[in-house]
Amino acid sequence: MSPGDGRWFLFNASPDIRTQIESFPPLQPSSNPRGRTVPLQAVLLTDAELDHTLGLLLLREGRGLVLHATETVRDTLYGGTSLLRTLEAYCPVEWQPVIPGADVPLADGLSYQAFDVPTTKRPRFGSDAGKGRVAGYRLTDERSGRTLVYLPSVQDLTAVRDQLDDCTCLLVDGTCWRDDELIRLGLASKTAREMGHMPIDGSDGSLARLARLPIERTIYTHINNTNPILLEDAPERRILEQHGMEVAVDSLDLRM
Amino acid sequence: MSPGDGRWFLFNASPDIRTQIESFPPLQPSSNPRGRTVPLQAVLLTDAELDHTLGLLLLREGRGLVLHATETVRDTLYGGTSLLRTLEAYCPVEWQPVIPGADVPLADGLSYQAFDVPTTKRPRFGSDAGKGRVAGYRLTDERSGRTLVYLPSVQDLTAVRDQLDDCTCLLVDGTCWRDDELIRLGLASKTAREMGHMPIDGSDGSLARLARLPIERTIYTHINNTNPILLEDAPERRILEQHGMEVAVDSLDLRM
Repeated sequence: MSPGDGRWFLFNASPDIRTQIESFPPLQPSSNPRGRTVPLQAVLLTDAELDHTLGLLLLREGRGLVLHATETVRDTLYGGTSLLRTLEAYCPVEWQPVIPGADVPLADGLSYQAFDVPTTKRPRFGSDAGKGRVAGYRLTDERSGRTLVYLPSVQDLTAVRDQLDDCTCLLVDGTCWRDDELIRLGLASKTAREMGHMPIDGSDGSLARLARLPIERTIYTHINNTNPILLEDAPERRILEQHGMEVAVDSLDLRM
Repeated sequence: MSPGDGRWFLFNASPDIRTQIESFPPLQPSSNPRGRTVPLQAVLLTDAELDHTLGLLLLREGRGLVLHATETVRDTLYGGTSLLRTLEAYCPVEWQPVIPGADVPLADGLSYQAFDVPTTKRPRFGSDAGKGRVAGYRLTDERSGRTLVYLPSVQDLTAVRDQLDDCTCLLVDGTCWRDDELIRLGLASKTAREMGHMPIDGSDGSLARLARLPIERTIYTHINNTNPILLEDAPERRILEQHGMEVAVDSLDLRM
């Protein structure tokens, strides 16, 4: 995301970050005299999942990184996956603690407030405390007052309901269509919810909940390759579209 | 690489391994009932560099991995970057120690011998012992007797000269064209050689050395984005081609 002045901020750093940067000219280092440094101001982490953090190691060749993360996420990246310790062997890392509820100015006219996203998922690494393991972000364009909520991992929308009521745009967890999707396919022994992700379908799924809210654009993201909404001709995709909801695609450009 | 019976082995696991697998149908898990498991028998590591090992974490969702690595490389992956400890939290990892000079059958008709590639480069992690940090591999097709040598990191060809004399195909370190390439561009304060990579150009560069050897195909690999041989119209590329040498490209298919 960017306030529009050439500075860019990233939500999470996925393992395909190089491909993302290569396909997005404003983030390319070519205009920069140091050649390898992308015009990236900071990375805002929602959690310590490998698929959200491995890309940090691919950003190691710049002058350093500013990382926004909760204390729990930072501790997991240090003592659990050790990713931060490895990264610091290559470049300086400045940690900005993410504190739920605090207003954080990112740039002129752009600020965020993070909020705790409770989860009962048992983590592979680090503390299994309920709090601090997953953060959601509410970004505000202070000129227009419009807000975007980023929520790629959420187990239960009830707990974060306050955040959804007046947001303009929502990027929300679309990992699985059904709660037992991975069990049916023989890929896992856990439900989507047990893995920290609310399914889309069902009376207690995210679609039924979100369809009732006055959000301008609701866009499913963090979609697993087993989720039929990825197929343009799938009936599940049609259902989403009938509810006015969208499926995130690479290089989706959102303007606030 | 594959002996041709549907089993595949990988040299190193780069961060773009998912893209590699997606663009290479024989490695795709679609034909496999478990869906996420690629028909990968083992990964053979030349060293512990992040760009050669981060992709291991992207292979964590299968039934497990077999990893060929020297003891020094394994120790660095455990105690240095901690990548192996993280991987083992997701799937079982079977370590096959790589011992220089030993004949190792990989599959019917396909075997390898690893050899030590001495380096004086100071490692960021782990032991700075000269031995064991970098391995080269000599693959032999036992039916034809033809051999391929894989050498993506090499500081001095003299030390591995015996391996080059009778190989059919050589995949060799092409990181930099000039020894001072990264210094000139202001990207680093070290020469290519100080970073463990023999430059291509110059009287003591790899091109002058390799051009004299009777190798059928010599293919430069591990090419940095500063190296002009990546540009099809660069004079440096022309020089390589005039010596009958090649530049590796994605999805290059070599048949022994």
